Amino acid sequence: MASPLTTPLAVSLGDPAGIGPEVIAKCWDNRSAFNLPVFAAIGDPRSVAAVWDGPIELISDPREADSAFDLGLPLIQLASAEADTPGHPSVAGAHCSLDALELAVGLARSSSAAAVVTGPVAKEQLYAIGFQHPGQTEFVAERCGISPGNVAMMLAGPTLRTVPVTTHLKLTDISQKLTSALIESRGRAALRGLQRNFGIPEPRLAVSGLNPHAGEGGMLGAEEQEIIAPAIAALAAEGWRVSGPHPADTMFHARARAAYDAALCMYHDQALIPVKALHFEDSVNVTLGLPIVRTAPDHGTAFDIAGQDRADPRPMAAAIRMAAENAAYRADSA
Amino acid sequence: MASPLTTPLAVSLGDPAGIGPEVIAKCWDNRSAFNLPVFAAIGDPRSVAAVWDGPIELISDPREADSAFDLGLPLIQLASAEADTPGHPSVAGAHCSLDALELAVGLARSSSAAAVVTGPVAKEQLYAIGFQHPGQTEFVAERCGISPGNVAMMLAGPTLRTVPVTTHLKLTDISQKLTSALIESRGRAALRGLQRNFGIPEPRLAVSGLNPHAGEGGMLGAEEQEIIAPAIAALAAEGWRVSGPHPADTMFHARARAAYDAALCMYHDQALIPVKALHFEDSVNVTLGLPIVRTAPDHGTAFDIAGQDRADPRPMAAAIRMAAENAAYRADSA
Repeated sequence: MASPLTTPLAVSLGDPAGIGPEVIAKCWDNRSAFNLPVFAAIGDPRSVAAVWDGPIELISDPREADSAFDLGLPLIQLASAEADTPGHPSVAGAHCSLDALELAVGLARSSSAAAVVTGPVAKEQLYAIGFQHPGQTEFVAERCGISPGNVAMMLAGPTLRTVPVTTHLKLTDISQKLTSALIESRGRAALRGLQRNFGIPEPRLAVSGLNPHAGEGGMLGAEEQEIIAPAIAALAAEGWRVSGPHPADTMFHARARAAYDAALCMYHDQALIPVKALHFEDSVNVTLGLPIVRTAPDHGTAFDIAGQDRADPRPMAAAIRMAAENAAYRADSA
Repeated sequence: MASPLTTPLAVSLGDPAGIGPEVIAKCWDNRSAFNLPVFAAIGDPRSVAAVWDGPIELISDPREADSAFDLGLPLIQLASAEADTPGHPSVAGAHCSLDALELAVGLARSSSAAAVVTGPVAKEQLYAIGFQHPGQTEFVAERCGISPGNVAMMLAGPTLRTVPVTTHLKLTDISQKLTSALIESRGRAALRGLQRNFGIPEPRLAVSGLNPHAGEGGMLGAEEQEIIAPAIAALAAEGWRVSGPHPADTMFHARARAAYDAALCMYHDQALIPVKALHFEDSVNVTLGLPIVRTAPDHGTAFDIAGQDRADPRPMAAAIRMAAENAAYRADSA
């Protein structure tokens, strides 16, 4: 069991016009029921007030969140040039969401916050203001001085954790982008992440095949033998407990899941279908390979339902809880 | 609610050296607990006796199963040239498994059996004796005079049914094999199957995308717009309730599943990962588009554990139950 945290978590609100402010405020409302640790939100308080009637406690340092947390939602104010209407993102809102992300990462890097939880951002608006990264993950990696190739995205639910080797690729492009080196580096990030963030001293990684039946001995594809098996052998030679390539369709039932701590999958849907089928309300996006802990709920800005009091706060609550657990494991092993 | 059956089911034992005989005998053992209807096994009684101590009632017509079912496992004898050892398949065993399949289909076509449930066969041995079909499904289709393109394989569990448009293809080959016509014909087979086999008068079909995020408006692939959407439009124009293309990763959680009766998926793992993650012990392979009902457990011969009393009979039990339900719905609507 990991120790309790000594510093609060930093939670960026994400895009002020998305559902981030609403779900974070609802998390504070339900902080006891959701069993949440002390956290400090970062962003424009107007975006919270537009969708929530509860008390906001403005603070200037996350450490003030401790005493403020019983009184209201502790919030470090980053005013946007204009107050957005829920559901209508703007360039000013994108600037504000980026500032909040930057501050949250900085606070975690300087140990003023125990971990970073990021609310959902609007990529289109971010690109419009010159954001150069595919997503928040790569931005956080760069701010931490880590190459994006050495971090890994993990989807973690209560009974299944998966890590995709490739992410946002057309299905026809996956095979040509898949290399043994990439599988090894994602596998290493996953294994080290299981040790550091989840406190598992000897983690077990199950690696999927790419093709149906893991290629059926070469009859249904050569990638398993030519690309995946050599990567598994290389990781095993380093002393890691790695198995596979496994047929992806029989990897994710309860008995199969009990045999590993994370599944390394070859592509986006192979990794995300099983986690979301089993754990839609409480699967968390965890970035592994960083010097800090960063988690996020696995949903977007959902502009179509923003401001309607319809957003489900459970994924954000799961992300906050997992950030605290991950940070506590790291503190224990430091 | 469907009516009870007036004729027994025909259950082929599959390969005599596989786990088929064991799981079918265990189904008879647990016929009350599993809530199974009367069925007649077809195959070599020696393959059952080799792995099971219970009583076998030899019969020559499935209709005798009714009175025999309380006394022992009713079995229509098809002697193999030699008695196989569990775990060691032979050419003689392959002949026997094929004869049993052929007889089971014939009995169902002549209405002497209400439906066919097929035990797992050994494809390698079948190919060695000149079997020309990719699997039992295509053989059954041919014996029923149906083109393989007009049948569809459905994986059906208690809360999710999926139908793959393509099946055993390399991942890199899927896109080029995917056509609007194939999606339409599989979709039609799925929709008609939901009506005839599952008694759903106005079935709802959810169609997946091929690429992550269903192609993200073309950014991550063109198949959704060029191939899948036109097929959906064509089915909708025929009056069917069809939606999509949906991002595959967010199609399979409980709330999403409640909005459709079956998911039409573009490839093997996309269809099988979610069903097996959710329903590994009770997902059933149902062949749609046939004049008869045919189901099968979704597992193979498992030669590695044959004869060790380790095989789980629950998938076979689920296949027998679903065959009876499907047959009863068909009888009601006939």
